[in-house]
Amino acid sequence: MTIKDARTPASTQNASVATEPSTDGEAGKSIGWHKAYVEGTRPDLRVPVRQVHLTNGQSVTLYDTSGPYTDPHVETDVRRGLPPLRENWIIARGDTEEYAGRPVRPEDDGIKHTSPRGGLRNLDAVFPGRPRQPRRGRDGAAVTQLAYARRGEITPEMEFVALRENVSPEVVREEIAAGRAVLPANVNHPEIEPMIIGKRFLVKVNANIGNSAVTSSIEEEVEKMTWATRWGADTVMDLSTGRNIHTTREWVLRNSPVPIGTVPLYQALEKVDGKAEELTWEIYKDTVIEQAEQGVDYMTVHAGVRLAYVPLTANRKTGIVSRGGSIMAAWCLAHHKESFLYENFEELCEILAAYDVTYSLGDGLRPGSIADANDEAQFAELRTLGELNRIAKRFNVQTMIEGPGHVPMHKIKENIDLQQEICDEAPFYTLGPLTTDVAPAYDHITSGIGAAMIAWWGTAMLCYVTPKEHLGLPNRDDVKTGVITYKIAAHAADLAKGHPGAQEWDDALSDARFEFRWEDQFNLALDPDTAREFHDETLPAEPAKTAHFCSMCGPKFCSMKISQDIRREHGGTKAEIEQGMAEKSKEFAAAGNRVYLPIAD
Amino acid sequence: MTIKDARTPASTQNASVATEPSTDGEAGKSIGWHKAYVEGTRPDLRVPVRQVHLTNGQSVTLYDTSGPYTDPHVETDVRRGLPPLRENWIIARGDTEEYAGRPVRPEDDGIKHTSPRGGLRNLDAVFPGRPRQPRRGRDGAAVTQLAYARRGEITPEMEFVALRENVSPEVVREEIAAGRAVLPANVNHPEIEPMIIGKRFLVKVNANIGNSAVTSSIEEEVEKMTWATRWGADTVMDLSTGRNIHTTREWVLRNSPVPIGTVPLYQALEKVDGKAEELTWEIYKDTVIEQAEQGVDYMTVHAGVRLAYVPLTANRKTGIVSRGGSIMAAWCLAHHKESFLYENFEELCEILAAYDVTYSLGDGLRPGSIADANDEAQFAELRTLGELNRIAKRFNVQTMIEGPGHVPMHKIKENIDLQQEICDEAPFYTLGPLTTDVAPAYDHITSGIGAAMIAWWGTAMLCYVTPKEHLGLPNRDDVKTGVITYKIAAHAADLAKGHPGAQEWDDALSDARFEFRWEDQFNLALDPDTAREFHDETLPAEPAKTAHFCSMCGPKFCSMKISQDIRREHGGTKAEIEQGMAEKSKEFAAAGNRVYLPIAD
Repeated sequence: MTIKDARTPASTQNASVATEPSTDGEAGKSIGWHKAYVEGTRPDLRVPVRQVHLTNGQSVTLYDTSGPYTDPHVETDVRRGLPPLRENWIIARGDTEEYAGRPVRPEDDGIKHTSPRGGLRNLDAVFPGRPRQPRRGRDGAAVTQLAYARRGEITPEMEFVALRENVSPEVVREEIAAGRAVLPANVNHPEIEPMIIGKRFLVKVNANIGNSAVTSSIEEEVEKMTWATRWGADTVMDLSTGRNIHTTREWVLRNSPVPIGTVPLYQALEKVDGKAEELTWEIYKDTVIEQAEQGVDYMTVHAGVRLAYVPLTANRKTGIVSRGGSIMAAWCLAHHKESFLYENFEELCEILAAYDVTYSLGDGLRPGSIADANDEAQFAELRTLGELNRIAKRFNVQTMIEGPGHVPMHKIKENIDLQQEICDEAPFYTLGPLTTDVAPAYDHITSGIGAAMIAWWGTAMLCYVTPKEHLGLPNRDDVKTGVITYKIAAHAADLAKGHPGAQEWDDALSDARFEFRWEDQFNLALDPDTAREFHDETLPAEPAKTAHFCSMCGPKFCSMKISQDIRREHGGTKAEIEQGMAEKSKEFAAAGNRVYLPIAD
Repeated sequence: MTIKDARTPASTQNASVATEPSTDGEAGKSIGWHKAYVEGTRPDLRVPVRQVHLTNGQSVTLYDTSGPYTDPHVETDVRRGLPPLRENWIIARGDTEEYAGRPVRPEDDGIKHTSPRGGLRNLDAVFPGRPRQPRRGRDGAAVTQLAYARRGEITPEMEFVALRENVSPEVVREEIAAGRAVLPANVNHPEIEPMIIGKRFLVKVNANIGNSAVTSSIEEEVEKMTWATRWGADTVMDLSTGRNIHTTREWVLRNSPVPIGTVPLYQALEKVDGKAEELTWEIYKDTVIEQAEQGVDYMTVHAGVRLAYVPLTANRKTGIVSRGGSIMAAWCLAHHKESFLYENFEELCEILAAYDVTYSLGDGLRPGSIADANDEAQFAELRTLGELNRIAKRFNVQTMIEGPGHVPMHKIKENIDLQQEICDEAPFYTLGPLTTDVAPAYDHITSGIGAAMIAWWGTAMLCYVTPKEHLGLPNRDDVKTGVITYKIAAHAADLAKGHPGAQEWDDALSDARFEFRWEDQFNLALDPDTAREFHDETLPAEPAKTAHFCSMCGPKFCSMKISQDIRREHGGTKAEIEQGMAEKSKEFAAAGNRVYLPIAD
């Protein structure tokens, strides 16, 4: 494969090449990495990567989720949206059609009654980008990556992720065909850079955003999305529950380089003024179509919360903690009927198949406390999700399964093992799990522990948890902290799984550390800004960045420094050291026995 | 057992009883917990606990490391030091004697040359507290908790930790006698509240403090110690390497309610101006005695770094990353001789036994990068530590073993399994391990993941890592973040090990969460201040603290609220729900089908 970057002459192909250092939009500082592209078999197939250029002349290529925003050669404008990267691929397949689509109604944005101000609270908010019509499979045909994979077709999307993951396209196709991986890519979301979720691939991280009835605005949500992907979020879920749900989602979708997930039930509930018992299959279905036409890539559907399971939660410490789960439980009890999601699941499959919306089968009965982990209610629902997974596959709908929640460490493995067995190895997508309940304000950490472990054991995507979990809505800093924590968990799992190439990143950073290449260490860090800032806090002077010690131990106690001196004095390899040690010992003494350079302290 | 607290009438015993809410020294806010004491079999044996008083009239008793500083009935003064709690116990044993002790010399504080200012750089810094003479075992006799335990004696210290851990004193004695636990308690550190380190007990956390050649002062170090213990540090290591090492340590020891650990090699190296090759056994021994006389409770000794192992590190990515390890390696190579620590280990045992200083056998060859984990150098040293552990036990010296470092998740278990096998189940005391190298500025998290796992599998104490690891010296905030992260790891491990009573804390917090007792949730949190602050950030109004929802989901989407309504509407138990569900369903509809209280949004 060819990587296009600043150090490669521009090819004759029309691949755009980043030739200048990207700059940090906020700090305005030049940073030591470039956006570059790996070229596929066609000129419009260019996989973005982050190339970190080291001071020793080498470079390290890292996975990049940040989209065109970090490419200085692409002018982005949130009012126009991102270029529709996949549009030609979708059209070329010839199996979809444009159609008029469902008209947008005031209630889609939570406006029930005409007010003196009329319609949308904030008309300026309507997305002004290029006009578009929705697209769907002709005659409701399955136009899913699963259908293509099963037919043996390698789509451009599959080739894209193969390059991104450094595996063969055939492996990608096989994993999708077997249902062990999903490639969420709604035909109405051509802006995304395709990515894959499956245990054979790099562990992925989802970041939740979304306004609520209580706080936050459209602008904030779009900014949270670009911010989350900048730090490494692989997908973003828009969990808005307040006003302007439809419009917020439109802005987010048109500007998102990553797949967007939602929970359609939230919007459906807003349409019935929050009265769960007034929900109907028709309102729900209409909402799913509305969102599918906009381009939502995957939807959480709590179809596993069946009437009979609700009583199983009666003696729980924290009842039902999933919003969707509790809404469906309330509906089932109010009507004393089986869930309308469960009853109409096949029809839902037909809808999702026509847009290639991926299922994320929600765990509505997940445990919300250590006490409730791995209980009857949770596993009863999981068995139903296994059943629904098989139905979805019959309709060629890509499917992943959501998982807990709050689980102590010794009960984590049972979750992934059971899920893999019951759900035919469909990708597991877990929220944490949180390994203790006692640390509100630090639940990114209580859950990061569980997330790393369950990902090592086979979970394909981790839903992040921010420090605000249980306490409030995450702000910008919380989003960043959540994403970074989960990138750590995901990468730790990639290492533990022995994912090919995963350790190269650690090795490059450790080499830089051992050789006191401070700038390389910062640039290779998951969060270069904070690493640099922390270093400068104690030793701000520029020379300290080339110093052969750091402020933690000072020059005399720098083990790496002493270690380097030993290596320099006594030869590089074990044999050389053993052979020359006695002899070198004398020289070392003669040379003044200095294990560190004389630096005034 | 009797717990003395605000709600218990004062007993006739002279136990001091906290009768008013403690106040947060900084914020000045009243907080919902009290310092209380569990009384033992004698009036001077009072084990501190933190009692959290809930708004439902119940209370929860938590382990408390914060010392007399959080007892409003004790006046503390850092210039006087803490009361010598254990003094009478030590004297009553009749096996120690006071003696003149080693005179303090200018070089103990790093003053080599008389300067115009003369002696100590900062004479005011000399600790002004009560005069004291050092104490040691008569005729060098072993006066260790291990010796007593082996003789079948249950000391007041053992009874103290038994009450603290809620186990029988006999279990404590047995675990110490078997070498599976240590109770670090130098006869010259009577100020400590005894604690125990062993896999049968609660997982403990150590916080490192210490000035360096580059930054920080005595005052800062004393404050970091009290700050770290306030947040839950069970022991503190003073790793100072700059000036005033002796005096800083004196201040820290006299004011510390927790055991203090050191690495004597650091001070010894300062005494030879940082020239590793000038170190001698005599200088080292003199430093150990100096520190033992001051009251250091445990000492890291890198006696496992043998000459023959140094070449094993030659092909490592990051060489030797332990300060002590690299110093000893440099010494061995410079002289081409076996380590003077290894050669004189038996004499060192005699010294430590006379003061009941506990060994922490250092892992000088621990891996400093993912690439170097579990290599030949690391495990060669571990085997030597196993040999030294057996020698120490012959001399009745309590011993724990230090562990790595940087280890990917799939290689962690081998570390604890090998250590337990090779070291006869001596307590393992690990630094993390860090599960990836790529996140400088977040190494509290990369390592918190590994720490939780290795503690679950049997590690007895975790050495914290702060966000500044690899970058600089931790400040006050970093110390707090490091301690909280490691308390999470330790508690997650206690849960996973099924430690009796560990889950009560989680259950109490989850009950409070489910019942919207916000104040109880904050007060039970590992960090009440931050939990409260995060909540207030989004919903600052006082009524929000009694609201039946939070800002994350708002009233309509609050699953706990819906879940509670379901439980209220449909009866409390599974049987009741099943029995009455259809019937209740009608009532629910008749009552308006509200799953949430009507709150304006």
